[in-house]
Amino acid sequence: MRTKLARFLPVLDWGRRYDRRALANDLVAAVIVTIMLIPQSLAYAMLAGLPPEAGIYASIAPLLLYAIFGTSRTLAVGPVAVVSLMTATAVGQVAQQGTAGYAAAALTLAALSGLFLLALGVFRLGFLANFLSHPVIAGFITASGILIATSQVKHILGIEAGGHTLIEMIPAILAHLGQTNPITLTIGVLSTAFLFWVRRGLKPILRRMGAGPLLADIGAKSGPVAAVVVTTLSVWAFGLADRGVAIVGAVPQGLPPLTMPALMPDLIRQLAAPAILISIIGFVESISIAQTLAAKRRQRIDPDQELIGLGMANLGAAFTGGYPVTGGFARSVVNFDAGAATPAAGVLTAVGLAIAALLLTPLIHYLPTATLAATIIVAVLSLVDFAILARTFRYSRADFAAVVTTIVLTLAWGVEAGIASGVILSVGLHLYKTSRPHVAEVGLVPGTNHFRNVLRHDVITDPAVLTLRVDESLYFVNARFLEDLIQDLVARRRAVRHVVLMCSAMNEIDYSALESLEAINHRLKETGIGLHLSEVKGPVMDRLKKTHFLDHLNGRVFLSQYDAWTNLTKPAAALAACGSGL
Amino acid sequence: MRTKLARFLPVLDWGRRYDRRALANDLVAAVIVTIMLIPQSLAYAMLAGLPPEAGIYASIAPLLLYAIFGTSRTLAVGPVAVVSLMTATAVGQVAQQGTAGYAAAALTLAALSGLFLLALGVFRLGFLANFLSHPVIAGFITASGILIATSQVKHILGIEAGGHTLIEMIPAILAHLGQTNPITLTIGVLSTAFLFWVRRGLKPILRRMGAGPLLADIGAKSGPVAAVVVTTLSVWAFGLADRGVAIVGAVPQGLPPLTMPALMPDLIRQLAAPAILISIIGFVESISIAQTLAAKRRQRIDPDQELIGLGMANLGAAFTGGYPVTGGFARSVVNFDAGAATPAAGVLTAVGLAIAALLLTPLIHYLPTATLAATIIVAVLSLVDFAILARTFRYSRADFAAVVTTIVLTLAWGVEAGIASGVILSVGLHLYKTSRPHVAEVGLVPGTNHFRNVLRHDVITDPAVLTLRVDESLYFVNARFLEDLIQDLVARRRAVRHVVLMCSAMNEIDYSALESLEAINHRLKETGIGLHLSEVKGPVMDRLKKTHFLDHLNGRVFLSQYDAWTNLTKPAAALAACGSGL
Repeated sequence: MRTKLARFLPVLDWGRRYDRRALANDLVAAVIVTIMLIPQSLAYAMLAGLPPEAGIYASIAPLLLYAIFGTSRTLAVGPVAVVSLMTATAVGQVAQQGTAGYAAAALTLAALSGLFLLALGVFRLGFLANFLSHPVIAGFITASGILIATSQVKHILGIEAGGHTLIEMIPAILAHLGQTNPITLTIGVLSTAFLFWVRRGLKPILRRMGAGPLLADIGAKSGPVAAVVVTTLSVWAFGLADRGVAIVGAVPQGLPPLTMPALMPDLIRQLAAPAILISIIGFVESISIAQTLAAKRRQRIDPDQELIGLGMANLGAAFTGGYPVTGGFARSVVNFDAGAATPAAGVLTAVGLAIAALLLTPLIHYLPTATLAATIIVAVLSLVDFAILARTFRYSRADFAAVVTTIVLTLAWGVEAGIASGVILSVGLHLYKTSRPHVAEVGLVPGTNHFRNVLRHDVITDPAVLTLRVDESLYFVNARFLEDLIQDLVARRRAVRHVVLMCSAMNEIDYSALESLEAINHRLKETGIGLHLSEVKGPVMDRLKKTHFLDHLNGRVFLSQYDAWTNLTKPAAALAACGSGL
Repeated sequence: MRTKLARFLPVLDWGRRYDRRALANDLVAAVIVTIMLIPQSLAYAMLAGLPPEAGIYASIAPLLLYAIFGTSRTLAVGPVAVVSLMTATAVGQVAQQGTAGYAAAALTLAALSGLFLLALGVFRLGFLANFLSHPVIAGFITASGILIATSQVKHILGIEAGGHTLIEMIPAILAHLGQTNPITLTIGVLSTAFLFWVRRGLKPILRRMGAGPLLADIGAKSGPVAAVVVTTLSVWAFGLADRGVAIVGAVPQGLPPLTMPALMPDLIRQLAAPAILISIIGFVESISIAQTLAAKRRQRIDPDQELIGLGMANLGAAFTGGYPVTGGFARSVVNFDAGAATPAAGVLTAVGLAIAALLLTPLIHYLPTATLAATIIVAVLSLVDFAILARTFRYSRADFAAVVTTIVLTLAWGVEAGIASGVILSVGLHLYKTSRPHVAEVGLVPGTNHFRNVLRHDVITDPAVLTLRVDESLYFVNARFLEDLIQDLVARRRAVRHVVLMCSAMNEIDYSALESLEAINHRLKETGIGLHLSEVKGPVMDRLKKTHFLDHLNGRVFLSQYDAWTNLTKPAAALAACGSGL
């Protein structure tokens, strides 16, 4: 009973064995992650078009709920860059940024996303996420990184410029370039440069100065906090807000509020598709992080339970003033590296952020948005990976086409069109590939009982026996191809008396392929040619036995291709074989 | 040069060798087919919602053009039942039946369909038709037969009733049942009964009465003509048109007119999707008839050239007052059986129909529409095949689901929704099946070097060596499945030191699967487990060699599974193997 319940509430499993040593580890990890998350949460909320506190709120309840329902010991859940961008795109289509309707729609999006993830988990439909191929995800993430970085340029310049795609954003930025605020630009450029330097150079310097690895790590992760403190103090001290530097402004002090997502049918209809996309993208990102980290300690991740964990986290966000969340890569790795032993580290991080929400929010009034924009740009540029183009180009043109399409369409048409086109193209290209399977005419390797491609090897063939090895399952997409191919070969080679299909690589024969085989058999029979099968797999043979195909087969089924060869190439035996099928 | 041209103009091939014997054969076939086509063409035009002459026109130019461009020697092209129904549905959405706009839209539909088919042929994209699985086609044809027969009930009853789906038609018929015209009903029922009897019983009777097979065949095929003559004479003689019997009315006398399809952008946008569906359905039907007939004489069909032939035929229909056409089953079989030797039979049939259009049209003024409805009902009921449900149910639940969905949705929502849902479901189910491939843990069959499923056979295994045979190509849809599976197995079996993937049934590894294999390798390496491959196919290995995967592999690639087994189960050898990958 307890194990059964523990499957749905993993907390029951690790919670029972929790001890002081685990607590110490989790506490250290929580401190580091909290320091990292404060500026990041504010920044991602801005990216999503929401007030900064929404980012903090979205990092509290979701972390707690994931700790109870999730299966990863170290995954850190909260707002992430790509999902924030997708939220901005989706919510921007139904409400104006800055209005109450916008924030309410973000809650609705989180609720829909939570319900969808829960439904996938309960009905064990996590495999649907597999329709996103790696090239599509890689292209999408790269394009999203570019879109996100571009969307932040206006904050660095201190100008107003809208748009959700590169085509919309770049002209808008260029049109307002003349209104650039030089002080904002200075803050933005210096912050960006500082954060790049912290990311690359600070940790080795701290180590060389004698800091221990943990301390050096905390130092490096504090870079964004330092930038926030320095720029906020500068704006406050020099009164830069009066000179046109955009600041965060008043942020409510207190714990996350209890909120109710708007549930108008019209709104739900408009947000349903984006919610599904956000859920799937979020799940795919989250599960691959969780699995990578779990594997390092030989732990197990249950994908369907992960869906439930993420679903609950999103519902948590929906009811506590947040917006869609998922497992974040950087924070999870930091959590893992800092030694987090159990999901309690997430609980402690949530506590840290709750304290920040209670005490620190008045201090960020003068925080310039340019600093947050710098934080985002530095974080997302690590997502951009053009090397995927070269890697897929070398490996497979189809995968390359999927990457290019996804990148180009995401940049030009936005996230939803980009990912949808990528998925459709991947599926289409896969079906296209299997629609023209590799079919080799094979012959006997002299002195053996092996059969190999006549084009690649010196083999023995018989003009009266045409042996084809089809390297693919037969199903509706390629069934007619085989019909055409055999009809073509037989029409051209007048000497052929027997066609043998070597089925060693056929994992399935669906009903369409069965009918094609029947048509092939029927047509060959009309012209007095035998059709034989060899090396049919067990499950495929079981299926065929349920039909009349084998009764009507104008030939035989041979266990091995060598059997087929020895029986058919001897004229007398061949005739007998053919006759037996009639 | 001439052979190259003959490829695109098959007429150059058979035309050069044409002689008096072929002419005699073709002439006989043409006479029989012409007799059969006159009532059928009138009836199908009525089914498409067009004036009766449109059916005759659609049987003239298309036949001539197909004879020049098509590759089948015996295919008879013209209006067919299913395409007529689809035409009525598509054109009914943009224009009112009986208006000039309706006929013009039908021309546009034929033009779009012709252009689409030509484009598919020129770009050699005929494989797209393969996305229609046999169960989807079978379900669609059966449902179409029911829809068509139901749509003709109103003509038999002599009432007005609209609708394109069963849900619309049945209540409309029931609502008007009280207005049934008893004379029309009598004509309709008697004609239907007579035609059923002719179809089943006339030919044997004629043979028993001493008629030769050819004469008996002509007699049986003349059934519809007899029904037309008798009912037309009755209506004329007894003045039944004045007593409410609906008649064909005035039909213009003359050769097909030169027409221009309407090409407004709006109309094209609305008709594009139906035109694509009609083209693909028409092509699939036509090519399977053509191939079945060609195989009987060991002739070749070139599917891409067939697309060009059908495309030209449809363009011909668009410019001569017709509507979308394709190769018809019944007429092609009749043509073949009657001894047609070359496409000249089609040319002669076209001449016969042109003579009919010139001379016979005044005679059909008093032809009751109930007779045409009877012709249609008797023809289409042979399309209805519910046995497909039982056959697919026995063979595969997925194919059964595709048939049921297509039938139900076609009947309930109409032809376009039905076929689209069927295609989407087929593709989805195929992807679902391959998303959870059959993976067998295998062990050594004692005394052999064969490896078999541990669940099915008594085999030798080693707790330190986990050998998995994946019976499917690895690609994005199932890549993560394998990751989960291996992670799961390894987390549960603490003794495992080596994982061997037996790749004999993997016909492809796409980029997503490559990344999954890299992730599996990386994760196994972290826990000190080796990953090995065995029996990798040549083309797959060629691909892998282009990447760094093999350099990073924490294990070896074995030519045979037996090699892997002997190397890994000996402790010393296994350690060496694992070390070599580091």
